[in-house]
Amino acid sequence: MGFQNVLVAQSGGPTTAINATLAGVIKGALESERIEQIYGSLNGIEGVLHGRIIDIRRSIKSQADLKLLSVTPAMALGSCRFRLPKYENDPAIYKTIGDVFEKLQIGYFFYIGGNDSMDTAHKLSDYFAQTGRDIRVIGIPKTIDNDLPVTDHTPGFGCAAKYIATAMSEIIRDCEVYLVPSVTIVEIMGRNAGWLTAAAALPNAVGESAPHLVYLPEAPFDAEQFLEDVKEQQRKHKCVVVAVSEGVKNPDGTYAAETFQSGKVDAFGHKYLSGVGKYLETLVAEKIGCKVRSIELNVLQRCAAHIASKTDIDESVRIGAAAVDAALAGETGKFMMFRRVSDNPYAIKVETCEVALVANQEKVVPKEWINERGNHVTREVFTYLMPLIQGTCEIPLKDGLPVHFLFDKTLVAY
Amino acid sequence: MGFQNVLVAQSGGPTTAINATLAGVIKGALESERIEQIYGSLNGIEGVLHGRIIDIRRSIKSQADLKLLSVTPAMALGSCRFRLPKYENDPAIYKTIGDVFEKLQIGYFFYIGGNDSMDTAHKLSDYFAQTGRDIRVIGIPKTIDNDLPVTDHTPGFGCAAKYIATAMSEIIRDCEVYLVPSVTIVEIMGRNAGWLTAAAALPNAVGESAPHLVYLPEAPFDAEQFLEDVKEQQRKHKCVVVAVSEGVKNPDGTYAAETFQSGKVDAFGHKYLSGVGKYLETLVAEKIGCKVRSIELNVLQRCAAHIASKTDIDESVRIGAAAVDAALAGETGKFMMFRRVSDNPYAIKVETCEVALVANQEKVVPKEWINERGNHVTREVFTYLMPLIQGTCEIPLKDGLPVHFLFDKTLVAY
Repeated sequence: MGFQNVLVAQSGGPTTAINATLAGVIKGALESERIEQIYGSLNGIEGVLHGRIIDIRRSIKSQADLKLLSVTPAMALGSCRFRLPKYENDPAIYKTIGDVFEKLQIGYFFYIGGNDSMDTAHKLSDYFAQTGRDIRVIGIPKTIDNDLPVTDHTPGFGCAAKYIATAMSEIIRDCEVYLVPSVTIVEIMGRNAGWLTAAAALPNAVGESAPHLVYLPEAPFDAEQFLEDVKEQQRKHKCVVVAVSEGVKNPDGTYAAETFQSGKVDAFGHKYLSGVGKYLETLVAEKIGCKVRSIELNVLQRCAAHIASKTDIDESVRIGAAAVDAALAGETGKFMMFRRVSDNPYAIKVETCEVALVANQEKVVPKEWINERGNHVTREVFTYLMPLIQGTCEIPLKDGLPVHFLFDKTLVAY
Repeated sequence: MGFQNVLVAQSGGPTTAINATLAGVIKGALESERIEQIYGSLNGIEGVLHGRIIDIRRSIKSQADLKLLSVTPAMALGSCRFRLPKYENDPAIYKTIGDVFEKLQIGYFFYIGGNDSMDTAHKLSDYFAQTGRDIRVIGIPKTIDNDLPVTDHTPGFGCAAKYIATAMSEIIRDCEVYLVPSVTIVEIMGRNAGWLTAAAALPNAVGESAPHLVYLPEAPFDAEQFLEDVKEQQRKHKCVVVAVSEGVKNPDGTYAAETFQSGKVDAFGHKYLSGVGKYLETLVAEKIGCKVRSIELNVLQRCAAHIASKTDIDESVRIGAAAVDAALAGETGKFMMFRRVSDNPYAIKVETCEVALVANQEKVVPKEWINERGNHVTREVFTYLMPLIQGTCEIPLKDGLPVHFLFDKTLVAY
């Protein structure tokens, strides 16, 4: 029998629910009699490389602690944007990681992250298998973008979708107050996947006529056609509301907002996206000349825990705990996923698949969920999205402000 | 005895609580046996000028309707940005308004708005008094900016302050996740008054070290000093969080963001403010060169009903109902205000004063509530602010999304 200690880490961009998944892993580990120590690596795999490991039990002393952690936004263990090189390019880094795991007697490693993190989980599980170590590596998804394949949806997406849909409902009310015709453009995150922008259309599902236009990155974007679309909507609506993904692309494949951008890229070569809202605002002002404003929903999309989806938080805890069960059952090199059993009543099962199926893959909104004109979603999207935003979490408050869980970050000596 | 019908209207920028005040006026009117019809003017005083008047009773049929209206953001009767000219410059417009009031037998007019709207209330009450009409005009405050004098605070401010403080708490968590030093700049509304930006400091009151720097328009802003402040904070904190008011001004009195602005002005000659966050982001990137981002909290500050302050909503209803009582008691040309009786336990009284004292006046944050360096607030601010954000409202949901109250806008024939 191999080592019986657990190591868990978080990676990639923050979400509202990634700490709920961490809480699930901790819960699963605490409940198992086989597991001894529970360690957390600070700032993802970088914590392993730089000796920044904490003892989770120093901080988590009760069910109340776990519950508070599960509704604390962003990443309580910190994050990194580090991609593990291929083994043949840097065997030393694998040896360093292996040594740390050996010293800490890690038998189970849980990596909570997005596509890039799944690549790390894949490489590590291969390395441990090839070097004959019984260290089980499980990748657990998180991303507000919902762009991971195989799984029905990703933990963290439901909370972001709920914030966006709620904010849109309120922005729609705000838009209507004046008599003067206006155009309001709301820019939404999601990179190359339109899931979050589709969620901006949810007010339509409960009877709002707005948003009137919804542009996903999956449909080609054309500035001329956009202006025609706006003019057409203005014939029907005094206040036209537009939802647009940060990632919409011109017919030539360049990002629509590219001229407004700095051209900076992140550690993975992804372009920083922002500015399409401002760009379209300028277009409308110049070419149509009516009152126009753009709104960027910004980072609240990934951290607005005050309006978390209970479904998302509960599922995120569940998938974390299930990852521990899977590892204890002998699985490794696996990815935790949701399979939807039914839309109504909504039901999912938590399953596993090979993490290799997920690493570096993107799942986008299917073409048939976008209308023919490429300027709105079809109602099928709502059937998919609606269950994910249901339920309200109880958020602990102190003097009217949210209380968040913070780990004692005293490092473990080893 | 004069006419016994009520007319109510809303004016200026939207807030989360202005419909609560409308609900209070309607409640007060429904409860009085003396009041007969209750009319609403669409889009403020412009509805009177253009014959756009509705019968409130067509829509409000129950306490449940009033309750839903009170938690619906923005302005259910619509708004305007119209300043009534001086009588001597346009007597005809006063005659038009007087004729409509006569036809509709209006004895009581309630105008819910900000500084500019109080000017209209003042002019109309003078006009009615001078022409010997017993039409009682009461101005009721609303503004997220909290910049009206005499009253302890304005309805709508508490909700905005709560949204801002909550968003800041969550943004602080989001900022901390990476190891790389960073600066996050959050731009906040409030025009020339720093009340909302002061609310961004509330996380400090519950134990957060962030935000580390808080710039109010009441203190002169100097870009060089700002960069020094950031560098000083960077010696103590990996992630420096800055709250800055859209209205901060250079020592020469120009807006700090002016170079980033379009130069457009609104109907009252106020400059459109935006861009100071972007401006400071650029400054930090160029002069310090670390990771930096700016976040504009945007219109959610004035419409995020999903996280309304119960104190604000309840008080807003109360001040609306009290306005009806005041008018019935014979008052006119008055402004409804809160007088704070005690901080702890928090208690207010609703009183009246001359609306002339308020029209076109601004109340800003007192100098003694800003630190000597002009880069943060003192703790006295928290004693003032804390009671205003307390309490959580029950927000009716349908399929997980907020339900809003909409009036039947069938026009009254007269």
